[in-house]
Amino acid sequence: MNRFIENVTPGIAELTPYVPGKPISELERELGISHSVKLASNENPLGASPKVAEAIGRSVAELARYPDGGGHDLRFALGVKHDVDPARITLGNGSNDVLDMIARVFLAPGSESLFSQYAFAVYPISSQAAGAKLVVAPADDYGHDLDAMRLRITGATRVIWIANPNNPTGTWLEADELKAFLAAVPENVIVVVDEAYSEYVTQEAYPDVSRWLEDFPNLVVTRTFSKAYGLAALRVGYGISHPDVAELLNRVRQPFNVNSFAQAGALAALEDQAFIQSSVEANLAGLTQLIEGFEALGLGYIPSVGNFITVELDCSGVEIDQALLREGCIARPVANYGMPNHLRVTVGLPEENRRFLDALKKVLGR
Amino acid sequence: MNRFIENVTPGIAELTPYVPGKPISELERELGISHSVKLASNENPLGASPKVAEAIGRSVAELARYPDGGGHDLRFALGVKHDVDPARITLGNGSNDVLDMIARVFLAPGSESLFSQYAFAVYPISSQAAGAKLVVAPADDYGHDLDAMRLRITGATRVIWIANPNNPTGTWLEADELKAFLAAVPENVIVVVDEAYSEYVTQEAYPDVSRWLEDFPNLVVTRTFSKAYGLAALRVGYGISHPDVAELLNRVRQPFNVNSFAQAGALAALEDQAFIQSSVEANLAGLTQLIEGFEALGLGYIPSVGNFITVELDCSGVEIDQALLREGCIARPVANYGMPNHLRVTVGLPEENRRFLDALKKVLGR
Repeated sequence: MNRFIENVTPGIAELTPYVPGKPISELERELGISHSVKLASNENPLGASPKVAEAIGRSVAELARYPDGGGHDLRFALGVKHDVDPARITLGNGSNDVLDMIARVFLAPGSESLFSQYAFAVYPISSQAAGAKLVVAPADDYGHDLDAMRLRITGATRVIWIANPNNPTGTWLEADELKAFLAAVPENVIVVVDEAYSEYVTQEAYPDVSRWLEDFPNLVVTRTFSKAYGLAALRVGYGISHPDVAELLNRVRQPFNVNSFAQAGALAALEDQAFIQSSVEANLAGLTQLIEGFEALGLGYIPSVGNFITVELDCSGVEIDQALLREGCIARPVANYGMPNHLRVTVGLPEENRRFLDALKKVLGR
Repeated sequence: MNRFIENVTPGIAELTPYVPGKPISELERELGISHSVKLASNENPLGASPKVAEAIGRSVAELARYPDGGGHDLRFALGVKHDVDPARITLGNGSNDVLDMIARVFLAPGSESLFSQYAFAVYPISSQAAGAKLVVAPADDYGHDLDAMRLRITGATRVIWIANPNNPTGTWLEADELKAFLAAVPENVIVVVDEAYSEYVTQEAYPDVSRWLEDFPNLVVTRTFSKAYGLAALRVGYGISHPDVAELLNRVRQPFNVNSFAQAGALAALEDQAFIQSSVEANLAGLTQLIEGFEALGLGYIPSVGNFITVELDCSGVEIDQALLREGCIARPVANYGMPNHLRVTVGLPEENRRFLDALKKVLGR
């Protein structure tokens, strides 16, 4: 063993990094397949607004110039969108970057990071990299159990992470229960409400938590352009918080963390809300198609409000995933979330959902 | 004061973030000027290879897909370029990202981070964010003094940062002295050699330190596409190191830290080495033009091998910078580096250098 390994920061020595889905090209190369259907990463099957490609074309003229480190135009547009002071906006290289900044600023050895069973994998990874103790509250029927979470708040709790809706389960929290929870959290504890999939939620009782910032200075809302906006390739997310929290996050933010193409693309995407509307409608139709298919196959599933759904198998999700890959269908096993008999599938185009359901029927022998 | 501020991680509470140069559009808006010349951020005045714009155009088709989190194609191309195993390559969202990963993995409260007076500002910022003690070795005539650095290595030293050439001074280290220094460093201490400006150096005695990796498992070389390759807008840098170090850095690397456009652009840029050659030639001519201009004005300067040069004034660099801004010339004061009477200027196109020299003559009243 090389001697520098002795000196690795506590937390990082035991850390297992997030394993992203492989790109289609790499998977097809490995499996010797082609024309596969990728429903593994909750990407928008409609792509992105055509306005984004135009904005990217214009940005090429400034390739050699550094990005605007302050993200002036995009932060102002987001301030208008959410009706908040731009000083409340922190731009991230994806919302992952914002989650990581929160962990770096507020977590350290000796502090506790609290989240739900089955919650998004980046919460424990960023928390562990910061050396914090991980505290997991048991879920209630795969969803966040806010009572169980509240019971686990201690004097050492520094950050609580809530995904609404949650990935990979697609479960969600209503306005009333979430607001009551926030009111019960000590105000020296940061509460992150991760709204990566919020654009897809059409339920009346689903809250836009950014409207509660005046009431809860310890609240940080995170959003992303990687899902409904269809800009996963560009990496843009943001946090909305008290300006003092934003100022702290900006201390660890890398000065040029969001590149010029990402800033220009996100700005253009914001201007095309009709694209979001059509994405939401297509997603609702696709969710229905998948649910009807699961029911026809006699399979259970976790009701989801996201652009993905997690189907319950009576056997190993990893094995079914491998069999589906040989049929050219790429989904996401969730054994790493403690759900060995589930498989998460992204809502695709109608023909993609059809191919997935047909392949699932074939590999399950039903 | 909001109560969550009590809980900020040590180091971050006292941290002052890096202040990037403002984008031209913002500066022009503030000053009410137009057609300004920006020589503030060491950007390539020739832009980027035309192959990069083509690659970006092709990438637009995959906007909604996540980037390749493993950076397969770019890491392999870099492995070929440096004749190393791709397992030695860590991709960063700019080399800033790699520097930050190194700090997070190897520095913590109780450890020491060692660098030279006048060294690049990101070393102390990333080190302080990790909670390490900052140890500054005095410079010798503005350049790194390796003897002074060696004398400051203690049992708590974990990372030593060397910029070769250094920004903002443009000074550089020869192969023999640098290799002797590496041989004297305990092998449990990581030595970072930051070669952001290496493509511009034509001196015979300047080393390509990536060739020494077999001899020094504690060595990390960092490179960037933001300077000679002209891709500052895209944010791509990389580290070359022992595979075990790369594996550790990847634990804190955000899974999609380099976006798809950045990966495609960097890959295309690597294929156009003729562009690099012409950039280096243009830079040498521009350096000569600036030096002759400084000498004609009776001004001293720090000899530089980079794409920038730091001129010595007999008055405040910040004040001269303000006066130059009113003439439409944007340079970079370096008072934050402890050099209040210097001003750093990027080598521009011949007409940009001319405008800068004319403006400097005017504001100095010579």
